[in-house]
Amino acid sequence: MAKLVGGIEAGGTKFVCLVGSSPDDIRAEIRFPTTHPQETLTKAVQFFKEQEEKLGEKIEAIGVACFGPIDLNPSSPTYGYITTTPKPGWAHTPVVKPLHQMLGVPVAFDHDVVVAGIGEGKWGAAQGLKDFIYLTIGTGIGGGVIISGKPVHGLVHPEIGHIRIPHDLQKDPFPGACPYHGDCFEGLASGPAIEKRWGKPGHQLPVEHPAWEIEAEYLSLAVYNLILTLSPEMVILGGGVMQQLQLFPRIRQRVLALLNQYIQSPAILENIDSYIVPPSLGNRSGGLGAIAIAQQIIE
Amino acid sequence: MAKLVGGIEAGGTKFVCLVGSSPDDIRAEIRFPTTHPQETLTKAVQFFKEQEEKLGEKIEAIGVACFGPIDLNPSSPTYGYITTTPKPGWAHTPVVKPLHQMLGVPVAFDHDVVVAGIGEGKWGAAQGLKDFIYLTIGTGIGGGVIISGKPVHGLVHPEIGHIRIPHDLQKDPFPGACPYHGDCFEGLASGPAIEKRWGKPGHQLPVEHPAWEIEAEYLSLAVYNLILTLSPEMVILGGGVMQQLQLFPRIRQRVLALLNQYIQSPAILENIDSYIVPPSLGNRSGGLGAIAIAQQIIE
Repeated sequence: MAKLVGGIEAGGTKFVCLVGSSPDDIRAEIRFPTTHPQETLTKAVQFFKEQEEKLGEKIEAIGVACFGPIDLNPSSPTYGYITTTPKPGWAHTPVVKPLHQMLGVPVAFDHDVVVAGIGEGKWGAAQGLKDFIYLTIGTGIGGGVIISGKPVHGLVHPEIGHIRIPHDLQKDPFPGACPYHGDCFEGLASGPAIEKRWGKPGHQLPVEHPAWEIEAEYLSLAVYNLILTLSPEMVILGGGVMQQLQLFPRIRQRVLALLNQYIQSPAILENIDSYIVPPSLGNRSGGLGAIAIAQQIIE
Repeated sequence: MAKLVGGIEAGGTKFVCLVGSSPDDIRAEIRFPTTHPQETLTKAVQFFKEQEEKLGEKIEAIGVACFGPIDLNPSSPTYGYITTTPKPGWAHTPVVKPLHQMLGVPVAFDHDVVVAGIGEGKWGAAQGLKDFIYLTIGTGIGGGVIISGKPVHGLVHPEIGHIRIPHDLQKDPFPGACPYHGDCFEGLASGPAIEKRWGKPGHQLPVEHPAWEIEAEYLSLAVYNLILTLSPEMVILGGGVMQQLQLFPRIRQRVLALLNQYIQSPAILENIDSYIVPPSLGNRSGGLGAIAIAQQIIE
């Protein structure tokens, strides 16, 4: 039987903590706002301790799906830290160490998007697949790349949100919102980019608003590039912006047009509806992924 | 001691066959034009048989770095075939089967760029690295993606040459030369694209010709995207166009400018000269990579 573990989705806005062993065995869940690091981490620890007592069962490991940037180099003195975030109070903050000290169990740690991808691969949309991509389009754009069942880190880690894609200034004169790169993918297609371009947030724009055609174009160009670069078996698109479900059929159609029959795979040509998909674990991809990586380190 | 094997770089223009076990132990080499499949493959087989006799030693496996598209699905009835190539006589041609039948040894088989990347990883520029990219810019543009020491195939295989990158039509009104995608990366930056844009082939254009600034721009945008998508430890740029060595400093400088300090890695910020590099096995990357994959299947 899968062991009882804790999962933390440590987001910049809120923390989600789960106790369980799988989507069918969630014993407890709590959500609370991300405040000061010590306060927030202590609250998570208290929750896990209370649940252990209540359940009369030991939590054997903790997994953390963490907002970034984070230090993942095991030989670095700041391994397990959040590093240079602009989020007040959180720059250069250890996450793994205090959790390990307060709970006395192994702590697995990775980027929020990567862990959400692992969750979707273990129990969600990409169950059974070895090579897939999980993209989240929200306040920022991030991507988890899973190859041969494992997240790609490489030199540092992928930063898919900042790739450059064609930007037709006649159709969309918006200069882009990325402080580093202007009109990179994130600068053109993140939630804040939509809000800056149209003067109101996406969730206030109707389904037929021209915003969504432009948004679908950038998402399609990025997904197209990822398909050609990584040849994934599936592309999962999550995050706040993708709550606009009308984007999915537009993206699928446009990606097919961009590919122009170049990739001769039935998974794409005949089954695009199950190739470019929303996450199937809903708002629990990150928390369940955290449970999955917690189980991995004690297996 | 490493076993004696044969390596074939099966290109669309020429075949290169090597017998040996490493770059320091090349026992024989032959280069001949790619003509009809049966004639060409028989010539390779004859060469290997002659060398076995001459050396008094058995060649224990063959590796093939093959031009594509090829079928790499081991459960497919056409595994080891060249599939839909426009090259006369070569469409739907078995490569692995006749070599195996005529030589009676195991045959390893993969894309030319992937195998060249494996060669550079085993003995060349990327020796000891686990995650890197080998791009070839010539008649076409192709990329081998190595993650955790293994080539990425995924659903089909990467087709990095066809990603979309920004194309400033005012600076470069050339519409692109790709029959599928017009101004994709290959459509803008391959050897034929250079020739179409300027009316003469790249090797006839002087070092100070504006062609090279435009070429460096597209190569930089593509390399930038690959860095953000895969976080490689190194990017190797090979192929005929990269014989223009003046491109390297331009690309390194432009990639740094595009990144704009976003990726905080000393490998990039302080050592860009050894991060974006030419192949170090010269015109033997493919042949030596073929030797490497031949050794892998018998190990």
